[in-house]
Amino acid sequence: MSTSKYGRLIGASLGPGDPDLITRRAWAALNGGARWAYPVKKAEETSYALEIVRRGGLEIPHDAEPLVFPMTRQAEPLARAWAHAAARTAAMLAEGRDVVFLVEGDASTYATFAHLARTVRELAPGVEIETIPGVSSFAAAAAHLGEPLAGEDDTLAVIPAAYGIEVIDHLIDEFDTLVLLKVKPLLDDVIALLERRGLLHEACLIEKVGSPHERVVRDVSTLRGEKIAYLSLILVRNPGRLRGELQRGCRKKVASKASQPT
Amino acid sequence: MSTSKYGRLIGASLGPGDPDLITRRAWAALNGGARWAYPVKKAEETSYALEIVRRGGLEIPHDAEPLVFPMTRQAEPLARAWAHAAARTAAMLAEGRDVVFLVEGDASTYATFAHLARTVRELAPGVEIETIPGVSSFAAAAAHLGEPLAGEDDTLAVIPAAYGIEVIDHLIDEFDTLVLLKVKPLLDDVIALLERRGLLHEACLIEKVGSPHERVVRDVSTLRGEKIAYLSLILVRNPGRLRGELQRGCRKKVASKASQPT
Repeated sequence: MSTSKYGRLIGASLGPGDPDLITRRAWAALNGGARWAYPVKKAEETSYALEIVRRGGLEIPHDAEPLVFPMTRQAEPLARAWAHAAARTAAMLAEGRDVVFLVEGDASTYATFAHLARTVRELAPGVEIETIPGVSSFAAAAAHLGEPLAGEDDTLAVIPAAYGIEVIDHLIDEFDTLVLLKVKPLLDDVIALLERRGLLHEACLIEKVGSPHERVVRDVSTLRGEKIAYLSLILVRNPGRLRGELQRGCRKKVASKASQPT
Repeated sequence: MSTSKYGRLIGASLGPGDPDLITRRAWAALNGGARWAYPVKKAEETSYALEIVRRGGLEIPHDAEPLVFPMTRQAEPLARAWAHAAARTAAMLAEGRDVVFLVEGDASTYATFAHLARTVRELAPGVEIETIPGVSSFAAAAAHLGEPLAGEDDTLAVIPAAYGIEVIDHLIDEFDTLVLLKVKPLLDDVIALLERRGLLHEACLIEKVGSPHERVVRDVSTLRGEKIAYLSLILVRNPGRLRGELQRGCRKKVASKASQPT
């Protein structure tokens, strides 16, 4: 389709940590002769995505290119870093060789790839971009726990915990499974909420699922006052969620508690 | 860990349709000498999961076992079919050989595996069960469209569309991305809602993503009155969602429109 001289930009999802959860397509992209690019938080720092691949037994090519995406909300340094990463990626693509950008988890789910791809496209119109989807951290967490993420007719919500306790409290009523991401700064408040709602034993915390540093905590109340990793999530099931009867194709019976009088 | 004489039961997620999206672990499980079991809707019918593997170039073992999971909500035949599938699986495991159960999509997400595993465990206590997570249909859909499923600070909800138009209407206000599954029986109503909410151009329908029968419809209004496949989803983005400023670790600023006075 594309007639540009640019190489293709490939966003390769690697799954959340276990190299065996890399898809066959991502694996082929890594081994297909493309130039590698990978995200780091600071120059000279290790890359979570690169470590997944390394654990998979692949040798890191000598010309693999780190791109710095700093962990800051300050607009100016963030914009500068993003502009640099996009310009560097565009420059690599202009050499005509494909670039495979390594992404932990799934590239469409809370990942930087979509934003990088959009910025690169502005610099290099006509560049061909492929996103290879992957296993999300919450799918891997549910599988690891042997819990359904969603059973038939269930509802599922995924939110950064920073939305706050009120929002989480409210969503517990509407969803059978709630995935709380980046739970670190609110951990104690979330534990207090789960206790108040009687859901302490329906929740589980997982850090760095599938990595050598994975930790599973089935009694989250033991975490009060503890420090946890940035890459951690809490999976909450609400087995007592009130809802009406849901029938295949039945559109009139509204099933969520949210629409019932309170 | 397990001291039982049973083989292990492995739920192998195959992703939504493209055999290249099978993970390395699921691929190894398929090729590791385990007995295959796969779901069919009726006896003698083809299996969507088995077709994914076949397209991947694997030969179907002569003793691969179909298990019937009928598409019905009638309690009695459903319970009978489930009991039979679980008993048959337990009998295969009792022969001491591992059984790999083929699952389309991700085994924890709207799949029958968790329920099957629970029932098998009742029949064969101590049986070791492993779930191999996979790429979900909505992650594959987002990647295929080149759209983020969730950007930084975004919220994501996944619901069967049968919950009804009122619920969908309400959730549009609370979520940046809404994934509507099994949209077939409500399609026209969903299209009308999206039009009313000004979101027709923020929605996209995908049928059987990654399969040879994949269809992507970016203008869903063209589908009015049309028949669509059972395995179809609509991805709706709500770029105009009202929310407060979300700050890293800021717990007091509630961000969802739902908790604002209406």
